Amino acid sequence: MASHVLLLGLLTISYFSALAFGDESPLQDFCVANLTSPVAVNGLVCKDPQLVEPNDFFFTGLQTEGNTSNALGSQVTPAFVSQLPGLNTLGIAMARIDYAHVGVIPPHTHPRATEIFTVIKGSIEVAFVTSNPINRLLIKVLQKGDVFVFPQGLVHYQRNVGHGHAVAIVGLSSENPGLIAIPSTVFGSKPEIPSEVLEKSFQLSKSVVAKIESKF
Amino acid sequence: MASHVLLLGLLTISYFSALAFGDESPLQDFCVANLTSPVAVNGLVCKDPQLVEPNDFFFTGLQTEGNTSNALGSQVTPAFVSQLPGLNTLGIAMARIDYAHVGVIPPHTHPRATEIFTVIKGSIEVAFVTSNPINRLLIKVLQKGDVFVFPQGLVHYQRNVGHGHAVAIVGLSSENPGLIAIPSTVFGSKPEIPSEVLEKSFQLSKSVVAKIESKF
Amino acid sequence: MASHVLLLGLLTISYFSALAFGDESPLQDFCVANLTSPVAVNGLVCKDPQLVEPNDFFFTGLQTEGNTSNALGSQVTPAFVSQLPGLNTLGIAMARIDYAHVGVIPPHTHPRATEIFTVIKGSIEVAFVTSNPINRLLIKVLQKGDVFVFPQGLVHYQRNVGHGHAVAIVGLSSENPGLIAIPSTVFGSKPEIPSEVLEKSFQLSKSVVAKIESKF
Amino acid sequence: MASHVLLLGLLTISYFSALAFGDESPLQDFCVANLTSPVAVNGLVCKDPQLVEPNDFFFTGLQTEGNTSNALGSQVTPAFVSQLPGLNTLGIAMARIDYAHVGVIPPHTHPRATEIFTVIKGSIEVAFVTSNPINRLLIKVLQKGDVFVFPQGLVHYQRNVGHGHAVAIVGLSSENPGLIAIPSTVFGSKPEIPSEVLEKSFQLSKSVVAKIESKF
Amino acid sequence: MASHVLLLGLLTISYFSALAFGDESPLQDFCVANLTSPVAVNGLVCKDPQLVEPNDFFFTGLQTEGNTSNALGSQVTPAFVSQLPGLNTLGIAMARIDYAHVGVIPPHTHPRATEIFTVIKGSIEVAFVTSNPINRLLIKVLQKGDVFVFPQGLVHYQRNVGHGHAVAIVGLSSENPGLIAIPSTVFGSKPEIPSEVLEKSFQLSKSVVAKIESKF
Amino acid sequence: MASHVLLLGLLTISYFSALAFGDESPLQDFCVANLTSPVAVNGLVCKDPQLVEPNDFFFTGLQTEGNTSNALGSQVTPAFVSQLPGLNTLGIAMARIDYAHVGVIPPHTHPRATEIFTVIKGSIEVAFVTSNPINRLLIKVLQKGDVFVFPQGLVHYQRNVGHGHAVAIVGLSSENPGLIAIPSTVFGSKPEIPSEVLEKSFQLSKSVVAKIESKF
Repeated sequence: MASHVLLLGLLTISYFSALAFGDESPLQDFCVANLTSPVAVNGLVCKDPQLVEPNDFFFTGLQTEGNTSNALGSQVTPAFVSQLPGLNTLGIAMARIDYAHVGVIPPHTHPRATEIFTVIKGSIEVAFVTSNPINRLLIKVLQKGDVFVFPQGLVHYQRNVGHGHAVAIVGLSSENPGLIAIPSTVFGSKPEIPSEVLEKSFQLSKSVVAKIESKF
Repeated sequence: MASHVLLLGLLTISYFSALAFGDESPLQDFCVANLTSPVAVNGLVCKDPQLVEPNDFFFTGLQTEGNTSNALGSQVTPAFVSQLPGLNTLGIAMARIDYAHVGVIPPHTHPRATEIFTVIKGSIEVAFVTSNPINRLLIKVLQKGDVFVFPQGLVHYQRNVGHGHAVAIVGLSSENPGLIAIPSTVFGSKPEIPSEVLEKSFQLSKSVVAKIESKF
Repeated sequence: MASHVLLLGLLTISYFSALAFGDESPLQDFCVANLTSPVAVNGLVCKDPQLVEPNDFFFTGLQTEGNTSNALGSQVTPAFVSQLPGLNTLGIAMARIDYAHVGVIPPHTHPRATEIFTVIKGSIEVAFVTSNPINRLLIKVLQKGDVFVFPQGLVHYQRNVGHGHAVAIVGLSSENPGLIAIPSTVFGSKPEIPSEVLEKSFQLSKSVVAKIESKF
Repeated sequence: MASHVLLLGLLTISYFSALAFGDESPLQDFCVANLTSPVAVNGLVCKDPQLVEPNDFFFTGLQTEGNTSNALGSQVTPAFVSQLPGLNTLGIAMARIDYAHVGVIPPHTHPRATEIFTVIKGSIEVAFVTSNPINRLLIKVLQKGDVFVFPQGLVHYQRNVGHGHAVAIVGLSSENPGLIAIPSTVFGSKPEIPSEVLEKSFQLSKSVVAKIESKF
Repeated sequence: MASHVLLLGLLTISYFSALAFGDESPLQDFCVANLTSPVAVNGLVCKDPQLVEPNDFFFTGLQTEGNTSNALGSQVTPAFVSQLPGLNTLGIAMARIDYAHVGVIPPHTHPRATEIFTVIKGSIEVAFVTSNPINRLLIKVLQKGDVFVFPQGLVHYQRNVGHGHAVAIVGLSSENPGLIAIPSTVFGSKPEIPSEVLEKSFQLSKSVVAKIESKF
Repeated sequence: MASHVLLLGLLTISYFSALAFGDESPLQDFCVANLTSPVAVNGLVCKDPQLVEPNDFFFTGLQTEGNTSNALGSQVTPAFVSQLPGLNTLGIAMARIDYAHVGVIPPHTHPRATEIFTVIKGSIEVAFVTSNPINRLLIKVLQKGDVFVFPQGLVHYQRNVGHGHAVAIVGLSSENPGLIAIPSTVFGSKPEIPSEVLEKSFQLSKSVVAKIESKF
């Protein structure tokens, strides 16, 4: 249950806006997303350029502390194409992440983006794991002003290892980076992955699988 | 421990060949990978075209049944760029997958490829999970000659739900698709992800995390 | 006349679906093709993601032997985006090819795909020709389980050199690979290429050109 | 024999320079091709930028009439990356084409480029054929200053239908467009495509195949 | 005032057609632009392929001398996707440029295209400037038949340094290359860039800024 | 003179690192730039993956206030591939920008990147100009936490319109975005653009051109 509380902020956009985003090369000055069009393409259709205005390229909200009162102690505030329609076709997005004391962003991947991460406040442990069969963990503790990069598609996490609240600003190389949080994806899908698959994959008993699934 | 027994066949190529693969558009008739060059680029450097011969585009081995005597009861036999160097820059690869009775390919992602899958023998359950926050499971049981597609970057698995051995042939949209097996990546990285991160992410006790990690 | 009997299976999709396919990078979890939309784009428009179901990623039919009772003695059974709309934007497709004894798939190109080929049954000669001015033929005879690759855009053919029926499964690096069969394209276009062009290009007399054209 | 006399001008570059070209997005101001490097990549390696000079972006030669004293009565003078190394990674090239009276550029494809064509002198018939199964011929006679486009990968030809010499200037959407001339590729490969394949594909007798092959 | 007189020919297409162009890889034989569709995407939507005809791939007009009676003494005649809808998705375009005696095409960039340039008549000085911090000018005087390339995104200009009228034909690596003319963009935007910004950026007094702005 | 004082921080990387950067799709888990290799490609060659360590993905420095004691009153602190070699092939970068009271970042373009911008401190006016012939200025004043996007290739500037020092963090959609500062590029190139070109382009007298050039 816990991890999607946190993730809802980030993720609401991911599926519903899934009908059409664009991060290939822009083919005109801009293609501001028309978020209400009934036509869905690989990349959102564009607003009439005659109606475009500065606010289409603008988003306000990264100054506000995210609500970290959830099981993970973290919150993501996205400025993705759903919040900032001028990003459509431009292949970039931004987000603020808040971490309560000992808060965690759980292991996850972005199927369509690399993430560049900088600490604005506090002390944050960051790490990613290389693909099979090596599965090497590259790990680092960051202080204010430090920068780290999570390569596209690799599993990574962050956690607050400082004494108080922590804040990060991140850039992502897609206007719709997507997020696959491992815990809720594997143990909380609707419907659930058959227990036999998870038992064999994770070498767990049926009862432990059931216990983990009950949390998501 | 179990899941990377299986995965070693597939994955040995993934990391060591990681120094340089190419699946962007080909820019000449072919660029057969020079697997021993000391120069590493984003995509493998090419063999001298004067020395290219038909065998560079050839691989033998998909007729052989994979060894499924492992904890997962499955085995992958890849024809990726490491096995078939003529694939370099061409953005495609193939593999055979063998499944013992009740064998499983555990939840995993390919960071750089969509997978198209057809059953050659037996009856195989296939499924993938959409990204957050929906995490919908799309699931289907396939018989011989049926085809299914796992979209790029999404978590998917397969398992043998028939009465005997099963076999599939798959195409992947990269000559170096990469594989991120969830169990070994999350619970078997070297070094391990700190227990506190996994406890909070999966809502598990320290002892259960330790028990799962002991398997990988 | 003969070669497009064979090719109709494969090709019907190529032109009519030509109004809009997509094999650039996917920009959302999936964009299942809406095959009946009146809006045509570079890549098919998407079905409402709320209406997507597992069958959109599924195709049945590769278990069925193709009808090779035609002049070429071969038949292609495609699983391309027109048959399997979930492939839209994902850059991959699959097909089964059947060959009667001495059956041939004539020289052709795929303008948008590399093809990876494996023999399921029989013994098949495969070859491709490099571009001008070298025009080198790279040729190989394959047995069951062997794999070969035809690089994107190059002219290639296959023929059954075994004693009975032969079958191959192929992967293609586009959901809409396209097919340009040389004989019907050059000698069977509608309207025909002016005879003077073909006479000079192939160093043929007008009567021989007319005779070849009469076959297509 | 005849058609590769003509094509040698254009094609010499195609294979030998095949070791490494680049028409993906440029990733720096420029990457002037180092045509003598022993390192081959998907796209030519770059000259030291400190040594780059204006002449690297310069080519002289399109003012000179091509020698059309050959069986086809045509000649191509290319300004591709082999002649103009500054084109490397930039995805464009240019050429001049000369046509003697009734001269022809035979049916061919460019596997990596669209061609835009304008007549500088004379009157030229141009046409391309759509892919299977339609194989529609789109044909037009152009006068001085007219422009036509041949879409990427499609078979096209040109012929001089005016009273004297004709000249065209073309742009191509790759610095190494590649050329597959149908006659020499199909009937003049080294070694030859087995006669049985050509007989069945083109519905020809062995003796007619042999006669055509003798010309290439 | 002066420079956009000249530029209107070239630029009218740039903004109004901005609603949707396509220069990614073509995904079907062709996708002729439907210039009147109300649906705007990243790349123009396509005309019904059943209605396509040879004229969709044809443009006439490069034989006509451009009107150079303007302050810059130059004129561009484009064959871009707005004039030649068959170019849609094909990533190439062409133009004719006329220069009166001492005529100039002012410093500008193409955000989406490299330009390849050949002189048809006269003698033309061409140059581009590398990016910061080097800002090196690479300059060359071209005669009839000479070719030069302006790498994508870099500032470049041309001027007639011969004794009479001059003409060039250029290819551009996008069907909608875009044009950012420095003088009108910086000193002639609507509304104007605040004077304080231009004063500090160019180290100019307010009155000089006002004087320059009055020209655009 | 003034504007490249400021720009040197940002730009030193742009040219010297120009020999080879990569922002196409990554083709392996990572390709950490080898900044000292003599081999230059379109995208930097990779470090041996066996020698890669967490510090390759790490950069420290965005906590430090940039030195704005220069004519423009601004300073850029980049975390691009030259500073953070793990960014190679990943298509993203980050920077901190400091603005003294009334400080300005002059009109400029990034030939290879869109920029997403957020204010960390102060109040900053941001604007971009659309391409010809419209040249519309889209302008907005941002406060702390506001986000704005500058589409790829378009001319944009920023200036501090608050009462004290201001700070921004930006993401860019390339690991080597490039920078073309209009003032130093047009009026400060080495060698200079011939005065006649600038006089006619900007409608200036020779003496005013000379005066502007003396500043760069």
